[in-house]
Amino acid sequence: MSDLRRDPISGNWVVISPEEEAGVKLDRFVRFETPREDCPFCPGNERETGHNILFIPSENGEADGSSWSLRVIPNRLPVLRTERALEREGIGMFDRITGVGAHEIIIESPRHDLLLHEFPERRIARVLTAWRDRVLDLSKDTRLRYISIFRNQGRRSGARMSHPHSQLIATPVIPVGIRGELSGAREYFEYKERCAFCDLVDQEREEKVRLVTQNRGFVAFCPFASRNPFEVWILPRVHSHRYETVSADEISDLAEVLKQVAIALAESLLIPDVNVVLKTSPRPKPRRDQWTTIEEDFHWHIEVIPRITRFSGYELATGMFVNPTPPESAAAYLRDTLFEVSRRRDDAQDQ
Amino acid sequence: MSDLRRDPISGNWVVISPEEEAGVKLDRFVRFETPREDCPFCPGNERETGHNILFIPSENGEADGSSWSLRVIPNRLPVLRTERALEREGIGMFDRITGVGAHEIIIESPRHDLLLHEFPERRIARVLTAWRDRVLDLSKDTRLRYISIFRNQGRRSGARMSHPHSQLIATPVIPVGIRGELSGAREYFEYKERCAFCDLVDQEREEKVRLVTQNRGFVAFCPFASRNPFEVWILPRVHSHRYETVSADEISDLAEVLKQVAIALAESLLIPDVNVVLKTSPRPKPRRDQWTTIEEDFHWHIEVIPRITRFSGYELATGMFVNPTPPESAAAYLRDTLFEVSRRRDDAQDQ
Repeated sequence: MSDLRRDPISGNWVVISPEEEAGVKLDRFVRFETPREDCPFCPGNERETGHNILFIPSENGEADGSSWSLRVIPNRLPVLRTERALEREGIGMFDRITGVGAHEIIIESPRHDLLLHEFPERRIARVLTAWRDRVLDLSKDTRLRYISIFRNQGRRSGARMSHPHSQLIATPVIPVGIRGELSGAREYFEYKERCAFCDLVDQEREEKVRLVTQNRGFVAFCPFASRNPFEVWILPRVHSHRYETVSADEISDLAEVLKQVAIALAESLLIPDVNVVLKTSPRPKPRRDQWTTIEEDFHWHIEVIPRITRFSGYELATGMFVNPTPPESAAAYLRDTLFEVSRRRDDAQDQ
Repeated sequence: MSDLRRDPISGNWVVISPEEEAGVKLDRFVRFETPREDCPFCPGNERETGHNILFIPSENGEADGSSWSLRVIPNRLPVLRTERALEREGIGMFDRITGVGAHEIIIESPRHDLLLHEFPERRIARVLTAWRDRVLDLSKDTRLRYISIFRNQGRRSGARMSHPHSQLIATPVIPVGIRGELSGAREYFEYKERCAFCDLVDQEREEKVRLVTQNRGFVAFCPFASRNPFEVWILPRVHSHRYETVSADEISDLAEVLKQVAIALAESLLIPDVNVVLKTSPRPKPRRDQWTTIEEDFHWHIEVIPRITRFSGYELATGMFVNPTPPESAAAYLRDTLFEVSRRRDDAQDQ
């Protein structure tokens, strides 16, 4: 039987409808591959991509002899630019702001064909550190209100390049989806004097039915009102509203959990298509407004969204998702997969 | 240069970024086709689909001898059902409602392979009349707060069947996307004592740059803050907050405009993938709450959304869309296409 479920943070209602099939054949694992020959992200083609915003040299030499381990570059076709002046304009009933902002590419590896679940944990930690450092740097520009970091992998995820990369887009406005979560979290705090996400961590760790994996620093679970089949959220167990305050130890814990989640999804669903998105507090405004957060208002987290189903007219019109897979079933499946993967690894080590 | 634009109704900000390519090859027109042999919507297979909720007999006999012209049936795998009792429950911090509602399929033609732009206007009018009659009938169930009608055409639109059909989903809650539009429209009205959509109709008819087509009853334009390339909205020129009050004359005007829009999109983009969604007022609640609309609060309309681009992690995370095609360019292209189509038709008639 189907249920309607309300996300306690955003207030979004979701239809959980287990009778439906996921509508996808899970018997093949086809990589989405752009040609290596003229890939601008590959070692040797560095000149095509402009200057390095961040350059992490290779430590002991990369397998393919590349001089770098990770690079951050400006997007060649940026949707927003820092060089413009911030201008606001009304056109009749319409409002417009110049496209001020930043759009950067984090090239996560010199290797062209690596998928997230194949990354060593150390490399995932390096990527997460680059995310932090870019947010810290861009925070100096007070015009930027929100910095979004996301990762598209596989054609269905919206990726156009198969070389492993993530992206950063910084905007002078707070996007509507983030505003919804912020105000939901603030209302919850004002009502209960507790962080909604901290309560979420407690309830998921106690109920266990939607847990996927956890370690001392982080917990991963399929959210109660999952909009998408096999969606997984990763939250720090200790309250923190800004990602950029994350410590090296925490990054190492987060890398471990993110790698486990990526393995669980890749081995369960047999598709490479997945989005990873970071949700964190907006930048404070010099003059405090209703969207300037205080310490308690938000709790940063990562959402991992496999792209199995397509959005139909219903999702587009109403913002209400129809999800055919109950999160409790998804979490049980992912836990079983992780158990199976670790058993195979133990067997292999025994021989 | 790119711009950030705010939708005056929903408050959503959109990045208009003309530098990007639409990212799709427009040189083929491949239909998405499910096999005709075992199509449950085709004449002869009526017994597979359960009872008729609505049955419109064929007038002068359909081309293929079918006894009906249009049928409405219950969805075989409904995401919501009217037979259940409405129960509300809290589970720790979570809220749940039983999946009460309705999910119906409007089979729009006995013909298996018709696309919207190939429909005769009379048939489009028949579909629009069926939409109205179903909303009127379901409005008797006071548990249902919102009735959404949408149409998926082509695989990218989320369609699973190629036989032409639309769907109706009625829910006991008002979906978050609709809530956002309702409160935006109400705020506008409270501020200006005018309907936001009426102002929109006036401004678009005056500026003309985003107009696609219009007749005495309806106007079609690419919205100022289009989230998707070539998105078109169709609004009644006279204020009306509920679709179900539409008259037969208005339906005939709407069918004409909708057909023109469908032709313009199909001939311009050369892809069949498109969603058509109806946005109308929620059902009033017996006890008036903040989402019970009054006459002025909303203005029903139809959104036509071609599915060219894919949603990436950025759209998923932030609800902020990146649209590579400025609506002014899209509208100019669609107007040119319509001019070209009518010239070809005139030429053909001359010979």
